Order: sequence, then structure tokens, then C-alpha cells
Amino acid sequence: MTRIGIYGYGNLGRGVEAAINQNDDMELVAVFTRRNPDELVIKNQTAKVCNVKDMADWKDKIDVMILCGGSATDLPEQTPECAKYFNVIDSFDTHARIPEHFANVDASAKASGHIGIISVGWDPGMFSLNRLYGNALLPEGNDYTFWGKGVSQGHSDAIRRIAGVKDAKQYTIPVESALEAVRNGENPALTTRQKHTRECFVVLEEGADAAKVEEEIKTMPNYFADYDTTVHFISEEELKANHSGIPHGGFVLRSGVTGWNKENKHIIEYSLKLDSNPEFTSSVLIAYARAAHRLANEGASGCKTVFDIAPAYLVNKTGEELRASML
Amino acid sequence: MTRIGIYGYGNLGRGVEAAINQNDDMELVAVFTRRNPDELVIKNQTAKVCNVKDMADWKDKIDVMILCGGSATDLPEQTPECAKYFNVIDSFDTHARIPEHFANVDASAKASGHIGIISVGWDPGMFSLNRLYGNALLPEGNDYTFWGKGVSQGHSDAIRRIAGVKDAKQYTIPVESALEAVRNGENPALTTRQKHTRECFVVLEEGADAAKVEEEIKTMPNYFADYDTTVHFISEEELKANHSGIPHGGFVLRSGVTGWNKENKHIIEYSLKLDSNPEFTSSVLIAYARAAHRLANEGASGCKTVFDIAPAYLVNKTGEELRASML
Repeated sequence: MTRIGIYGYGNLGRGVEAAINQNDDMELVAVFTRRNPDELVIKNQTAKVCNVKDMADWKDKIDVMILCGGSATDLPEQTPECAKYFNVIDSFDTHARIPEHFANVDASAKASGHIGIISVGWDPGMFSLNRLYGNALLPEGNDYTFWGKGVSQGHSDAIRRIAGVKDAKQYTIPVESALEAVRNGENPALTTRQKHTRECFVVLEEGADAAKVEEEIKTMPNYFADYDTTVHFISEEELKANHSGIPHGGFVLRSGVTGWNKENKHIIEYSLKLDSNPEFTSSVLIAYARAAHRLANEGASGCKTVFDIAPAYLVNKTGEELRASML
Repeated sequence: MTRIGIYGYGNLGRGVEAAINQNDDMELVAVFTRRNPDELVIKNQTAKVCNVKDMADWKDKIDVMILCGGSATDLPEQTPECAKYFNVIDSFDTHARIPEHFANVDASAKASGHIGIISVGWDPGMFSLNRLYGNALLPEGNDYTFWGKGVSQGHSDAIRRIAGVKDAKQYTIPVESALEAVRNGENPALTTRQKHTRECFVVLEEGADAAKVEEEIKTMPNYFADYDTTVHFISEEELKANHSGIPHGGFVLRSGVTGWNKENKHIIEYSLKLDSNPEFTSSVLIAYARAAHRLANEGASGCKTVFDIAPAYLVNKTGEELRASML
């Protein structure tokens, strides 16, 4: 049995709570919040709700703490801090800052003799793994990653900050013809605009100027200016009825060649189609929590990523069972 | 540098020879054959060709021996035998006999202090890995594996054994509508017939009875009787011109649910589209040969499968480089 703590109870924390229910060898023992614990109601009937400041009291009652905060400000602080007391897992997803975060978690986890696994989810996470496997198997080739169709929280937030916008949802959509070109082994060189389009559903404040808002979205640097962007103005009811989910997904492809004269082409494709981005990420976190617990029981310590974890550690079966049923 | 030996020089052995050329940290030192070494010409200009009976002389000159024989009779003997002298990799693919083969290689490799990695390729191999990851991430769900479009050597051979058949190629083809149903999250229960069709290109001996041959193919138990099979009679020239490649591939899907009320669906799909089945298998073998050498250098021994190998071992980069470039 792996005793799990959840640190932070947003979409991701609730996803982890649900995922624990789908795994017989997992038990939720406590949820930690920065709020008043009395004001937080969780679904699990037996787990405790605690304030984060009492975390150290749970040192010997939790096998793995799953950090469910954001990558911008929460995880850089919280993951190294929690690694003083627990084996930890997080879904840190600021790609450029991974080396720094890794070093901080590694130092903390090594000092306390714990395991930390960072950047666990689907990108970084399963997509990273597939980039690695693709490069390992086809060393001469090209990598392609497409995201979507799915909701980008960052882009939706950017639209919401525009004056006159009441609410908004933004979908990132891979360009089908670009995907097809990659699948056909054409090895296209693709610009940002050729890979993804952006579709926005916007609810205006009363009296707002639709044309002005649309112009402001389409010309927004970094977020939209480099993409073909479509803007739909809809009612608040319509947004709620048709756009309240958090789907996502995408594609990782490796296109490469083999043969003495590099005469044979090969395409490896991995794709995800997810109804709920945070719930799938939570499921990945739980699988790696199992691995963290096992590695810790073997005496390992320090920071790891999905690259360092042998697949067999992720499933609650013996090597013998795995070889007989899945190999 | 990993010094590689190749045991057996058929399609797979030649694929390994070519794959070594694509990896800077790999060097082919010798090819072992049961034939007279003087009669075997290999492409590599520096490696030696030796008879298998002299294998033990190479004990300290080869880091990993890659077994390139067949699963029916070669590998059950050869892999445990070679593990007495070398770290070994094979692509043993008789799924039902994997536990027995694992035990034999494990005993031999442990006794001599070597590493053996068996059943390396794409199925078993990369497809197995994706079945495992799928089950780890979506514990409540269904597995689907489709093969093709690709040449089945076993089915082609079965046709060639029919009286009146001069030559033949058989393609296994996944049923597109079944694949689509899985992708749509319909979780269909699929019969053998509903998953794959079989397409045969047959060259007849002069004077052979086409109708009789076609009937014999379509009613052949195990191989064709349970499938919708199409038979085309073509000329020897046409077979050579259009059907001399060895393409293959397929799809592994995991369809599962998450959420407190299991309300969200997720589809994970992994697919391969391979111009050359043996060359892709060879590329997988080389990546795992790298892992075997590293594990051996760390002092590990015994038999492993792809399930036991952390992905980072497969690529010639440091953990730091991997985290910065692929995570």
C-alpha cells in the first residue's frame, strides 16, 4: 500500500484524489491546503484535511506527497521544501527552468534521503518519453510535437485580461495537413503558423467593441500574432454549455531512416486524446508515485525524471506477471 | 564505445550492421556464422567474420552480442549459450514461451555475471512497452493491438507450402472501421475477423488450378480461415517489382476512463509505420545493446526485458543533456 498526501486541492489535486480510487494499492491519507482546513471539503471520506504548516507532523504517515500547485511560483518553493519530509512527485512544466528545479529538488531529496520525481504528466512527461524513445530508435531523423485539440489555460487567461472581455476559452488545434505531411515521411520544416491554429470563444462585457477585441487578440505578441487565429463571440450560456470542459492532447512523431544507404523510412507516432487534461496528468502522477515508493524502498534517493524510471515500476504487478501478460 | 558482435547474418543481422553505422558510440567487431566464414561477405570493412564455434575467443573483445537468429529453434539455444561469454540481446518473439526463455537466459547470465535483454524489437518490444504504459496510466480501460499494414513472413510461408504455388506475399491489414471505433472511445469487443483482413499476392506454378489454390488459402485453419482474405494471382515479375519490401507496423491503443464518476474518456495511441521490419527491429536492438553495456558496467547481471530498462539508458546523452533537450 502506498500512502499518498496531496498538496494543493485545485483541478489537479481533485484529479489525484479520483485517480487514487482507481488503484487498489493506493490510499489517500491527507490533503494539505494553505486555506483554513475546516473550509475545505474533499470527496474522500477517510482522509484528513490539514494546513500545510502542519506538514512535518505527517513525516512518517505518508509514503509519497504529490504536489499539485502551479509551476510559476508554487512548485519551485514547495517541491524542494516537501522533499525534506517526504518522497515527492510534481508536474513542473516550465521546460526552460527544469534544470534549475531538478538541482533544487535533488539537493533537498538527497539531504533527507528521499526520492523526488519532477515534471511528471504528459508534456513534460509521456511526450518527453516518446521524444526520447524516438531518438533512441531512429537516431537519424526529425522530431515533431503537435498539441491539441485542447484548451490552453494560458491563452484563455490572456484573452480574459483584455478590456471588454468577460470570459473566454482558447483551443489550440494542430494543422491536419502538417500532421499528414509528417506522417507521409515528407520531413517538412514547419513554421509556428504552419503547425497550429488558435480558435477563441469570447464572451463580451456589455457594450464592448467586438472588432477592437478581435484585433487585440489577433495581434497579441507571443500568444496569437504568429498564428492563424479565429475569434467567435458567443453568449455566456453558450460558453458554459459547450466550452466548460478541459480537454487536451496532441501528437509526438519521430520520422527517421535506416539502412546501409538510409533507404528505408520509418514513422513513430504517439498521440493522446484526453477529455480531461488535469485528470490524465493526475493518473500519470499516481503511476509515478508508485515508482517513487518502490525506489525509496530500495534505498534510492535524489531527484529523478520519467527518463530515469524503468517502466516495470509503474504497474502493481510482478515482473513475472508483466512478462506473461503484456510482453 | 560499445563493441558489438552479431550472431547470425540474415535480414536482422544485416539490419544491425547498418544500424551500428548510425550510432557514433557503437562499433561492429565481429559477425559469427555457422557457415564457412570465408564464404560470408559483410558490408563492414573492419569487422571480422568468424565461425560460431570460435565465439569464446572473443570473450573480452565484445561488450554485447546481438543474437539475430529465429525464435523457433535458434534463440532458445543460442541466447543462453552466448550469455556464458557475453552480455546478450535478442528479439525472441514467441510470446507464449517468453517465461521459459527468460528463466534460461537469467540462469546463464547470472552464473557468468552478464546482462541479457530478451524480446527486444517492436512486438514484443515497443508495443509491449506501450501496453504497459497504457495500463499504468489508465488502470480502468481496454487494450487494443492492431498489426499492419505489413508483410507476415509466417503467412507468406504458409501459402508457399501449398501445391501449385511458386511464390507468395501476404499482407496483414488492420480494419480501419475497427480502429476508428477504438479511437472514438467506443470500446468495441472485436472478433479476429473484425480486427484484421489478409491480402495475398500469389504466383502460380505453370498449370496450377487457381480456384483450388484460392480455396485452400481461404480455408487454411489458424492462418486464414478466421479472416476475410483476398487472393490476387500475379506474375513473378509483378511480385518482384511491387512486393519485395518487408514493410510492417501497427497500432497499440489504450482506451480508459478517469474521474470520480469515471466520466472522462481518454485514448492513448502508439503507432509504427515501417518500411523495413527487420531494420527497425535492428535499431531497437542497438538502443538496448547500449543499455545492456551501461547496466553491465554498473555491475548488474541477469535477464531483463524492455520493462526493466530506464529510458535514459537507451540514448548516448547524459541525464543533464536529456533533461535540457527532450523533457
